[in-house]
Amino acid sequence: MTSPSFTAEELIITKRDGGVLSSEAVRWFVAGFTDGTVTPEQAAAMNMAIFFRGLDGAELSAWTEAMIDSGVRRDLSGLSRPIVDKHSTGGVGDKVSLILAPLMAACGAAMPQVAGRGLGHTGGTIDKLEAIPGWQRELDPAAMTAVLDDVGAVIVAASDDLAPADRVLYALRDVTGTVASVPLICSSIMSKKIASGTTSLVLDVKVGRGAFMTTVDDARALADTMIDIGRRSGVATSALLTRMEVPLGRMVGNALEVAESVEVLRGGGPPDLIAITVALAEVMCELVGLDADPAAVLASGAAEPVWERMIRAQGGDPSAALPASPERHDIVAAADGWITHLDALDLGRAAIRLGAGRERIDDELDLGAGLEILAPVGTRVAVGDPVLRVHTGPGRIETARSLLDGAIVVGDVEPTPPPIVIERR
Amino acid sequence: MTSPSFTAEELIITKRDGGVLSSEAVRWFVAGFTDGTVTPEQAAAMNMAIFFRGLDGAELSAWTEAMIDSGVRRDLSGLSRPIVDKHSTGGVGDKVSLILAPLMAACGAAMPQVAGRGLGHTGGTIDKLEAIPGWQRELDPAAMTAVLDDVGAVIVAASDDLAPADRVLYALRDVTGTVASVPLICSSIMSKKIASGTTSLVLDVKVGRGAFMTTVDDARALADTMIDIGRRSGVATSALLTRMEVPLGRMVGNALEVAESVEVLRGGGPPDLIAITVALAEVMCELVGLDADPAAVLASGAAEPVWERMIRAQGGDPSAALPASPERHDIVAAADGWITHLDALDLGRAAIRLGAGRERIDDELDLGAGLEILAPVGTRVAVGDPVLRVHTGPGRIETARSLLDGAIVVGDVEPTPPPIVIERR
Repeated sequence: MTSPSFTAEELIITKRDGGVLSSEAVRWFVAGFTDGTVTPEQAAAMNMAIFFRGLDGAELSAWTEAMIDSGVRRDLSGLSRPIVDKHSTGGVGDKVSLILAPLMAACGAAMPQVAGRGLGHTGGTIDKLEAIPGWQRELDPAAMTAVLDDVGAVIVAASDDLAPADRVLYALRDVTGTVASVPLICSSIMSKKIASGTTSLVLDVKVGRGAFMTTVDDARALADTMIDIGRRSGVATSALLTRMEVPLGRMVGNALEVAESVEVLRGGGPPDLIAITVALAEVMCELVGLDADPAAVLASGAAEPVWERMIRAQGGDPSAALPASPERHDIVAAADGWITHLDALDLGRAAIRLGAGRERIDDELDLGAGLEILAPVGTRVAVGDPVLRVHTGPGRIETARSLLDGAIVVGDVEPTPPPIVIERR
Repeated sequence: MTSPSFTAEELIITKRDGGVLSSEAVRWFVAGFTDGTVTPEQAAAMNMAIFFRGLDGAELSAWTEAMIDSGVRRDLSGLSRPIVDKHSTGGVGDKVSLILAPLMAACGAAMPQVAGRGLGHTGGTIDKLEAIPGWQRELDPAAMTAVLDDVGAVIVAASDDLAPADRVLYALRDVTGTVASVPLICSSIMSKKIASGTTSLVLDVKVGRGAFMTTVDDARALADTMIDIGRRSGVATSALLTRMEVPLGRMVGNALEVAESVEVLRGGGPPDLIAITVALAEVMCELVGLDADPAAVLASGAAEPVWERMIRAQGGDPSAALPASPERHDIVAAADGWITHLDALDLGRAAIRLGAGRERIDDELDLGAGLEILAPVGTRVAVGDPVLRVHTGPGRIETARSLLDGAIVVGDVEPTPPPIVIERR
């Protein structure tokens, strides 16, 4: 596996000085990091050199493939349905996966989603599904394939055998100041997606105050880098850049977002959430050549029974009552006018303080906690009208109040919200 | 010692993004590296961030002082003589320390030189002195002070208690591609010099093919950075930029250079070696306010008895025969003309192959091996005239022959060698 013609120091210096590493060199370095030939100090130095110098398409593809090769590569080619997955870079109120998986199954595809927990002020799909009584996040590969064949949709937590080197590298990056490197972020995301066995992938790259990428240019760079990695690994990959200035839909918080997802699956729900879900589903159908009309399928309620089967296949009871927090508080408008902005970042941070997310990695969630948006952007309000309804536990509301008040912007002019999808890449 | 207000990751990110670290933050990071609060991975990432972003004067001074504080700081203030030291960035045939220490003692100063072994193609003062039968490189601090008081000159190997954190950091840099960082190089040199207790320091920063710095601009940057570190730590520091295109003097190799040094101490020797030694000594006298004439002292032979006492104080026998290699080979001119260049880099590399230096850290030296320059630059030669005399052991000459032949340049025009001292900083 290892070649005597490389040394870690030499490869670090090549990258440090702006050179390009051969695919063989990249694979040697990553394999060496896994087997101990390359020390954590050397990996840390290489990460920082990559932070400054970047990785070109071929280097990054080799880096990602080497991460995948540190673990298993699932083979879903035996499925009769076309396979497609989605990844979101994370937003506030982003429950799209919960709707999209059964919707795509109802359209005839199989969606084998490997999902994660909340990170920072953005929620996580696994946290949301854990609000459903009985639901289990883990499924062994054979059971996962069986559910995909039968139901067409499954959402599971990433297992330890998918790109394990990436997990170790991420932990190293986290303590050495090299998380914020576009190629390393893209490799981390794509290695797990590619290893999970999907052959098509749509990326929902969020842009704005509530997103990891705050400018369209940065989001484009991220999207294009991930698309290139996917295509070089033989995965049909496309991306939508979507707005994340205000929370998606009306609900923020785990059980609240499950309830809202079910509402959409039954043909209802808020227009922004429907629009983004349908837009992503249309790209997915195109990628796999499915002649389906996701908007019509969603409006018909046909995806709702698929949702119930998907939840039951992982031990969940889709008809059970969802957890609820004991306290309700309404946050009201401080002025007459129109709601012109509800700040996603502030509301995401407030949701953490209310119990819906984690300040520290071992914090326990209050699965019923969160926010309902009573007066979305564009609503005419008078002083004292309720804008947000807070669901939380005892003693928490005061820790979030200034963030909640500060998140609400009332203006004199009726706003015209821009379309949620910015562009396709 | 450590403050809870810093984390290693945060300081790495500050430096990575081009920010300036407070002196307190720098000291916390270096102390943390010593006590394990900061991991080797974090130190490696910080080193690479420093490689790209640099350290400003205050940061670098704090970094150096923190390195010093990881060990002891010698106090030589009880000496009756003014204290002065010299550091050379390394060259081929650079035996100046061997002459300068007794010369400065003869001029009335005390020179407590902490010296090192050969590095790459450049020789090391400790290796050279070890060619003298009986000479010991180690001296405990009390004995060192006594010799300085009595003789006025001592040359010892750096002991483990001088800036130990720098030694650990250097080993880390060596395997993580961060040796070639000007601030880290300067800190490494200056921490040991300042810790050794000198209050004045002259730097001999070599420039050219045979030196670490190949351009005057790079050498100036290195000199000015070290001068700034020294002055911020209260050490009167100055520098000469000197040429290192051809070997210094006529001898390259450990015992050969000792013999040449004694020749100069007796009032003889080659003019370039005398010129550089006197130039450095004049700056040293100026720094400590000594009203001496080093050129006259050197020419008088008055420094030679000091040399003998210095060598005897460390167990050496200055009158013993020096080691000699068994073989002699003459390398001859391939054309008629003038010797216009004798390449220091090629000859330094050849000397290693002949046994005078180390290819690997644990190689044993042949202390008698090396080169004599029979026809220095400016000599008129005919085809077949001897230019270099090689001293080596069996089987080695052929490994060096192409380097030796390639190092000799014969031209049609008589060259005018430029002055060896380029400028003072």
